Amino acid sequence: MTGNIQITTYRLITLLTDFGMKDGYGGVMKGVIKKINPMLEIVDLTHEIPPQNIAAARFCLMNAYPYFPEGTVHIAVVDPGVGSHRRAIALQLSNNNFLVGPDNGLFSGVISQNQIINAVELTNSNYWLTSRPSNTFHGRDIFAPAGAHLATGVPIQNLGAEIDPTSLTKININNCVEKSTGIYGCIQYIDRFGNLITNILDKYIKSKTWNLEVKGLMIRGCNTYADVSLGEAIALVGSDGWLEIAANGGSAESLLQVNLGVEVILHLLG
Amino acid sequence: MTGNIQITTYRLITLLTDFGMKDGYGGVMKGVIKKINPMLEIVDLTHEIPPQNIAAARFCLMNAYPYFPEGTVHIAVVDPGVGSHRRAIALQLSNNNFLVGPDNGLFSGVISQNQIINAVELTNSNYWLTSRPSNTFHGRDIFAPAGAHLATGVPIQNLGAEIDPTSLTKININNCVEKSTGIYGCIQYIDRFGNLITNILDKYIKSKTWNLEVKGLMIRGCNTYADVSLGEAIALVGSDGWLEIAANGGSAESLLQVNLGVEVILHLLG
Amino acid sequence: MTGNIQITTYRLITLLTDFGMKDGYGGVMKGVIKKINPMLEIVDLTHEIPPQNIAAARFCLMNAYPYFPEGTVHIAVVDPGVGSHRRAIALQLSNNNFLVGPDNGLFSGVISQNQIINAVELTNSNYWLTSRPSNTFHGRDIFAPAGAHLATGVPIQNLGAEIDPTSLTKININNCVEKSTGIYGCIQYIDRFGNLITNILDKYIKSKTWNLEVKGLMIRGCNTYADVSLGEAIALVGSDGWLEIAANGGSAESLLQVNLGVEVILHLLG
Repeated sequence: MTGNIQITTYRLITLLTDFGMKDGYGGVMKGVIKKINPMLEIVDLTHEIPPQNIAAARFCLMNAYPYFPEGTVHIAVVDPGVGSHRRAIALQLSNNNFLVGPDNGLFSGVISQNQIINAVELTNSNYWLTSRPSNTFHGRDIFAPAGAHLATGVPIQNLGAEIDPTSLTKININNCVEKSTGIYGCIQYIDRFGNLITNILDKYIKSKTWNLEVKGLMIRGCNTYADVSLGEAIALVGSDGWLEIAANGGSAESLLQVNLGVEVILHLLG
Repeated sequence: MTGNIQITTYRLITLLTDFGMKDGYGGVMKGVIKKINPMLEIVDLTHEIPPQNIAAARFCLMNAYPYFPEGTVHIAVVDPGVGSHRRAIALQLSNNNFLVGPDNGLFSGVISQNQIINAVELTNSNYWLTSRPSNTFHGRDIFAPAGAHLATGVPIQNLGAEIDPTSLTKININNCVEKSTGIYGCIQYIDRFGNLITNILDKYIKSKTWNLEVKGLMIRGCNTYADVSLGEAIALVGSDGWLEIAANGGSAESLLQVNLGVEVILHLLG
Repeated sequence: MTGNIQITTYRLITLLTDFGMKDGYGGVMKGVIKKINPMLEIVDLTHEIPPQNIAAARFCLMNAYPYFPEGTVHIAVVDPGVGSHRRAIALQLSNNNFLVGPDNGLFSGVISQNQIINAVELTNSNYWLTSRPSNTFHGRDIFAPAGAHLATGVPIQNLGAEIDPTSLTKININNCVEKSTGIYGCIQYIDRFGNLITNILDKYIKSKTWNLEVKGLMIRGCNTYADVSLGEAIALVGSDGWLEIAANGGSAESLLQVNLGVEVILHLLG
């Protein structure tokens, strides 16, 4: 006679929000998740997305997504439309990954690179924290519970009505334009270090010499920070494949006084 | 012949401090907890309470508390009196929850809504990190070890001498005043989004039309942010039941230039 | 016939970086670790080391290190030289602890107090995320994978070529100087509370009366914050044994307008 033991492995949950760390809103979401299933594990992707900045959230989630294990549930809440008629959604993607959050374009970066298997609107209040959710904190009342149930193994179809994936809100800011005078893009993100991340991918520069032009300045394309002197500006391939402008040992944002959206031109020198 | 396996489930620990994230003080508390019992799980509620702001800590803990599973141990350290004669305490509440931290009013919000089963002063140095704790970091030397032992199953009575629950330090800032000209309260908290959270509960407005008056301005009571134009001020019921003033897509704090403690008047219009 | 079950306990991983919380870089490192081994547990020591400040990272890691369980893997990434010829290293210390990160002096505080058992350069690309790591994010591409493999039980020798521990980069800022007119040191760290932490250890003051002199001001050596009035400056023994200057209920940094590196003199009064 043999004894049996079954170890159930649950999906990993990540959280990405603009809640910051000071008010405990992210902590409350973790409490809600743990109350539904104490075995669930939660990783903070970030809670410091600038308030209501959907584009920044889209960019961070898109870049982080490929590095998480198969079967991860990503809960993302940057939600200026909370309480209005914007839809609350859950998506099942290839590799058995899930996205949970508002339908406001937040997921359009990940979606552009991955296939949607199922899409539902979170209409089934049995999987909410309460049948009368607040009008201001769906992270706690709808998204955290929905994500916790998905991570525990509830089929996505149970969470609500199926929706057409082509109806999802999209933000498209990845496109740069090829002209005879260069490849024209813009600064799409500025990180903590003041690195200016463009929307131009490294596929354009393969084994070529290149410069990035910004505000009339020509910045030389190099391989590593150390290729220029301390404090000097440098262009290089960033860790997610976007061309970026940095400053060795400093902040390109401070050095060059460049803001989000500013035009950048890639010049290929052959 | 059958094999037996016993899986012990330990209590969840949460941390709420004003230590910030830059110095690693919160990380050190986690090391201390893991050294006592590597199986314990720790959730950060927040480490970004403004330095020494006991009232903000009280408010955050009170609002987060109901969302955590039964049997959670909340360690809270906002402790300007560390090293002085203020007591270090542990409380057992209904639902087998625990609070661990300084007796300075930090817990008075939670206590006002929950029953105390046991209260002790943390006088038993066997459950400290060292019998000679520092005078500046009881989070590491007393509260983290006490919480870790509680979460592991040590009875609260072992941690020190029983104390009278009525002797605990209280901060009472929840009371607003009903007058013939309105219900008078104040701004008790401002969150990361610049939402101005009053000390007036939503019980006053049930199915009535209402306004909030602040600094002579009348702000209309609505249901959701989207009920007003972008950038406009709005009054609504916040996610924890307090009436609050927000700005759609912006910060009411910046828009109205209102500080903590400013008077707010609720007008019921029938 | 009996059934067998083997529970493998993996090492704890800590993360210390200057990545901040807003961009999700720290979150990505956690994804990489969880993808290698979903059972690994990760504790954030801090991600808020000031950008590229190796000395602050060295100070925080040195102070936090003793409080973690035996067998912990500390991954530390403050890495202004990323992509250059600085070495990527892993160290095995006494008590079966590990350090993983760049060889830039970051570890020199921990090393000054602990014995190195093994030291390797992370040259084996089988234990990297990819055989073609980026030039800007070795935290994701080299250090997180190396740390995850170490925590899972891969022997350190597998990760790369052995190196001479005496060749490791050192930063030495712990030395103060004894003169006839006092013990001369400096402010080596300023924490979130504005506490000014010197590089003078408490061994000098045992059972003596003492003052700290800074910018011509004499600050009285006391036991606890409460020994002086609210807002007043005070000298005391900090939680890691360094003499420090604080302000009761306030910030000594704001009160005294003192910066990092400023000279401090310990006067022993007998």
